[in-house]
Amino acid sequence: MDYIRQPQAIEAKSFDIIGEIIRETRPDYQFASPLHEAIVKRVIHTTADFEWLDILWFSPDALARLTAALSRPCTLYTDTTMALSGINKPLLASFGGECCCYISDPRVVREAKAQGMTRSMAAVDIAVREEGEKVFVFGNAPTALFRLLELNVPVSGVVGVPVGFVGAAESKDALTHSALPAIAALGRKGGSNVAAAIVNAILYHLRDAK
Amino acid sequence: MDYIRQPQAIEAKSFDIIGEIIRETRPDYQFASPLHEAIVKRVIHTTADFEWLDILWFSPDALARLTAALSRPCTLYTDTTMALSGINKPLLASFGGECCCYISDPRVVREAKAQGMTRSMAAVDIAVREEGEKVFVFGNAPTALFRLLELNVPVSGVVGVPVGFVGAAESKDALTHSALPAIAALGRKGGSNVAAAIVNAILYHLRDAK
Repeated sequence: MDYIRQPQAIEAKSFDIIGEIIRETRPDYQFASPLHEAIVKRVIHTTADFEWLDILWFSPDALARLTAALSRPCTLYTDTTMALSGINKPLLASFGGECCCYISDPRVVREAKAQGMTRSMAAVDIAVREEGEKVFVFGNAPTALFRLLELNVPVSGVVGVPVGFVGAAESKDALTHSALPAIAALGRKGGSNVAAAIVNAILYHLRDAK
Repeated sequence: MDYIRQPQAIEAKSFDIIGEIIRETRPDYQFASPLHEAIVKRVIHTTADFEWLDILWFSPDALARLTAALSRPCTLYTDTTMALSGINKPLLASFGGECCCYISDPRVVREAKAQGMTRSMAAVDIAVREEGEKVFVFGNAPTALFRLLELNVPVSGVVGVPVGFVGAAESKDALTHSALPAIAALGRKGGSNVAAAIVNAILYHLRDAK
C-alpha cells in the first residue's frame, strides 16, 4: 500500500488541507490572530469537524493570559486522564510547567464520597488549595467547571470544553459570563481530545516563537 | 448553582436525551441490536455529534467476534495513550483482558527510526509478534491501520477509527474491504475518545449481561 509514513509530513499536509477547506467553504472567515488560527485548526485536526470554526469562544484576555501562564512554571489541572495523556508534557516541562489529574487521588475519592459530590468536583477543591499558578483544563466534566465557578478563586486560565448533554452547555455558558480568562466550547461539543489540542496548540506556538 | 452532581444520574439522563433526540430527528432510524444501539449512543455521548448515526460501519461478524474476545483473556493494543487512558481497564481486567500501548516503547522508537516508519507502525509490528488473542484499537494513526492490513495476520477484532485528513478515510475504507472483524468510522471523523467509547460500550454490555 502506498501511504505517507513521515509524521511531520502527515501533520503539515493535514494543516494544508484544513486551510484549503476553510478557504473554499468559508472564504469570509477571519482568524483574529495567528495563535487563534493555530488553536482552531488544531481542534479541527483532532476532530475532523469544521463546526469548530463557529463554536470556540475566547474571552478577550484568554490568549494573552494562557500564553503567559504556559510560558513559565505553572500547573495544569485536567479533569480526566485522557486530557492529561493528550497534552505534550515534555514540551510543557520545557517551560517549567507540569500537569496533573486528581480524579483517582485517594483524597478526592474520600472527599467526593463524604460530601456527595462528583470526584471531578472534589478534584477541583483539592487543586485550588495548592500553591502556585493554575490553569484548569476541562474536557469532560461540567460539574468540575461549575465547581470552579462556584469557588470563585483567581486562576490564570481555563480551557473549558466539557462535552455532553447534561450540564455541559450550561457550564460553558456560565464560564463565558464569568470574569475568568477562558477558552470555551459553545453548545454540547467538546471533549478531552479537544482540551488537549487547545493546550498543545498554545505550547507549539510558544515553542515556535522562542 | 443548581446542577446534577451524581455521575450515574448524569449518564442515565444523557442517554435518555440522546434517545429522545434520535427519535425526534430520525424517527425511521433503526438500530440492528441492543449492542449496536449501545455503541452508537455511547459514541454520541462522547462526541455530542449525531453524525455518528450514519458513519459507524460494522463488519457482519464484528460484534460477535469483539464480544467473544473481550469476554475472555485477550490483549487490546491501542495506538495512543489517550485511547489507553479512556478504556475502562478494571472492567476489562474483570474479564481477564489487558490493554497496552507501545507507542513510547524503546523497541518501537528504535525500530521506527531504523526502518523509516512511524512509531505507530512499529508498535503494530511488535504487537503482532506477541502470543495470545489480539484486538487492535486505533483512534489516531492511519499508518497503524494500514500496517496491520499489510501484515495480514489473524486478529480477533479491530476498532478502526483514526481521525484526520491524510490517510484516515483511506485506511478505514481499506479496513471495510478487508476480511477482518471490524468496526470502522467512515470518512474523516474518529478519535481516541471514540475508540475508547466503542470498547467501553462493549465492556458495559458484557458486564450487564453477566
